[in-house]
Amino acid sequence: METKIIKAGLLGLGTVGTGVYKVLKAQESEMTAKIGCQVRIKKILVRDIEKASRKVTDPDIVITDRWEDVINDPEISIIIELIGGTGVARRYIEEALKAGRHVVTANKDLVAQDGGMLLDLAKEKNLDFLFEAAVAGGIPIIRPLKQCLAGNHMAEVMGIVNGTTNFILTRMTKDNMEFSEALALATELGYAEADPTADVEGLDAGRKVAILASAAFNSRVTFDDVYTEGIGSISAKDIRYAREMGYDIKLLGVARNTESGIEAYVCPMMISSSHPLASVNDSYNAVFVTGDAVQDVMFFGRGAGELPTASAVVGDVFDVARNILADCCGRIGCTCYKQLPIKKMADTRNRYFLRMKVEDRCGVLAEMMTLFTRYNVSIEQMIQKDTKIEDCAEVVIITDEVREGDFRTAMRELAESPSVRKISSKLRVCADTRR
Amino acid sequence: METKIIKAGLLGLGTVGTGVYKVLKAQESEMTAKIGCQVRIKKILVRDIEKASRKVTDPDIVITDRWEDVINDPEISIIIELIGGTGVARRYIEEALKAGRHVVTANKDLVAQDGGMLLDLAKEKNLDFLFEAAVAGGIPIIRPLKQCLAGNHMAEVMGIVNGTTNFILTRMTKDNMEFSEALALATELGYAEADPTADVEGLDAGRKVAILASAAFNSRVTFDDVYTEGIGSISAKDIRYAREMGYDIKLLGVARNTESGIEAYVCPMMISSSHPLASVNDSYNAVFVTGDAVQDVMFFGRGAGELPTASAVVGDVFDVARNILADCCGRIGCTCYKQLPIKKMADTRNRYFLRMKVEDRCGVLAEMMTLFTRYNVSIEQMIQKDTKIEDCAEVVIITDEVREGDFRTAMRELAESPSVRKISSKLRVCADTRR
Repeated sequence: METKIIKAGLLGLGTVGTGVYKVLKAQESEMTAKIGCQVRIKKILVRDIEKASRKVTDPDIVITDRWEDVINDPEISIIIELIGGTGVARRYIEEALKAGRHVVTANKDLVAQDGGMLLDLAKEKNLDFLFEAAVAGGIPIIRPLKQCLAGNHMAEVMGIVNGTTNFILTRMTKDNMEFSEALALATELGYAEADPTADVEGLDAGRKVAILASAAFNSRVTFDDVYTEGIGSISAKDIRYAREMGYDIKLLGVARNTESGIEAYVCPMMISSSHPLASVNDSYNAVFVTGDAVQDVMFFGRGAGELPTASAVVGDVFDVARNILADCCGRIGCTCYKQLPIKKMADTRNRYFLRMKVEDRCGVLAEMMTLFTRYNVSIEQMIQKDTKIEDCAEVVIITDEVREGDFRTAMRELAESPSVRKISSKLRVCADTRR
Repeated sequence: METKIIKAGLLGLGTVGTGVYKVLKAQESEMTAKIGCQVRIKKILVRDIEKASRKVTDPDIVITDRWEDVINDPEISIIIELIGGTGVARRYIEEALKAGRHVVTANKDLVAQDGGMLLDLAKEKNLDFLFEAAVAGGIPIIRPLKQCLAGNHMAEVMGIVNGTTNFILTRMTKDNMEFSEALALATELGYAEADPTADVEGLDAGRKVAILASAAFNSRVTFDDVYTEGIGSISAKDIRYAREMGYDIKLLGVARNTESGIEAYVCPMMISSSHPLASVNDSYNAVFVTGDAVQDVMFFGRGAGELPTASAVVGDVFDVARNILADCCGRIGCTCYKQLPIKKMADTRNRYFLRMKVEDRCGVLAEMMTLFTRYNVSIEQMIQKDTKIEDCAEVVIITDEVREGDFRTAMRELAESPSVRKISSKLRVCADTRR
């Protein structure tokens, strides 16, 4: 029997593109047995043809800098977009879908922004649009949410979905480094990009939260809906205090499906050291999912990198190929059939960790308590450290659950109080919803 | 538009059967939006109709004790087998497939024994035969292995896939209990069955290893191929020694794809406390997978229980329904296209932990070393404890990697040596293959 060959076009030959090329090559010998056909890269779109030609030596692969050559090639069934960003990549994907090509992408920025529109476009044409690699690199999470866990009403998805910041926080925790030092190390080791803003500020994680929430809650959440805070203000001291109290500090992406709307945010949080997410260290990622049937389930692994991300891309490509062979493309498309409201960050509720320097005199704590009470902030735990500097005492507080908006107002007023010298840090404390 | 209804027959209404009934009911309102149709249970096969009628009150559901009524009903497209075991369950599944019904099952015993045959039978008829729930309850692992991670050559699958024994070992570790005490507690709390043999002896885990290995290595491994050892001989003292040396003791299922064949075994092992599997406690399960592209990935969650297992079953049922609607049933069937040899346990290699009482006199250690050297056993670490009882010293050894067969011979000879009073325990030490 003649082997069926499905041809693919690769857009981009950066880290992940190169990985996909390698993984497809490594699978060549058993691909036919595994999925029933051969998927072959026919053309690769690059900016620098000469540079790419040194990486890809197969005489059968055409390297081009003209996108039309790839997307409009009628022999090509699958476009693998690995350029990233919401600029040309968006245009290419739209053109590809319009031209009837199935699309596999690792582009979190684009999916978090225009995922709904692109899935609609794919559906119109009965095409596959898959993006397993857009969240948490090699870790299977989108397909598990849409298929394996489809029998659940999901209550919560919580994850460590940015390897750079997790590496930084791990070094701060284990080696007692300050943020700047850990960031420098991450840059040196290639974990952080030259401009680390998107990672450090939680934007990258925010995009992943949007995609996860959409898949988990069957309701579209875009990046604009996700509140983000970065880890730049975390100090080694906060981490030490946290650990004293049985917590670790992690940059968490949180999506919660509540009666009053979807909560979606990224921020550094204190999480109980006994929680499985607390022991996810270095550049590893993990996503912790809570559903009414499955209870707790966690997916852990490499959230980035050439081959792990390529693993997810190729998994999707193989799925498209299987769909083509079984003539069932578009079998699972957009699963956002609800339109749930997004809760304002001010309306979310969390416990808070608060560290501040206050005047060391009688009556100061009573003043603070009065202020807190006015804004419905009640105290779960308070430690006054005996380190007195310039007549100041350091006070560490963990509040009961409080409405974010109330807490913010209380903080503004507190900052103006003459007894408070400095609010050194405030951090949300993750509720342990394990069942 | 009229809602399409797909009818299912449920075989068994025990814990998981009841869970599936509940989960399908809980999904009713959004099932059509989610998967494009309603899946409704039409008939349930039970032994005790009266008892079942108290659990299931829907007037539309027929409860019967005649299997033919369920399997031969031409309106029923999907048979959900939740009786378990390799007796009648096997017959019913075969009859169902022959009658053209898709089958979803949680039956690990059967899949580990006859999975290949049943998948072949399903393929002949273009039917789905799915068994996500057969391994690690609610945790998605079969579909991730067959689809999401299909771009990998898998090197290793290692898991804690029995909740009962993990609960027992956790209590022994955390509460310093002996095995019998922890087993009694597990029985009291309902984690252990009245006859705990299948769990405690590693047989249940062995079945799951067979299924995992088959899916991961694309080569059929049956339960007969899996070597099993139980946890009955583990003592609290072993656990204390292990922890002193930076290890935890877990009942691990291990499947390894080596050049000289597949290794598949279940046994209590020492695993580095820093390994993600070491912190999987209580009745939780986890499966740690290593592939050439994805590197390390771990799946963690509830390995048993009414609703978690039902979550996996319903995920499969929804997948069948989606396949029926897209007319692509049998899209992914048996993926065992290789015939790799199974390595004999005697030919596997592991490091060993050895605890024994030897005569406390000059020259004894030298004798032992000579004996070890004869069988290629070299020592990585040795501790002689100063606890002397009746002129004996307790010696704890960790060996370098040694061929199992050689080690066994050395042990037999050692046991006969007059200087050795007792070999208190020998435990394999898990190689840390994290990348």
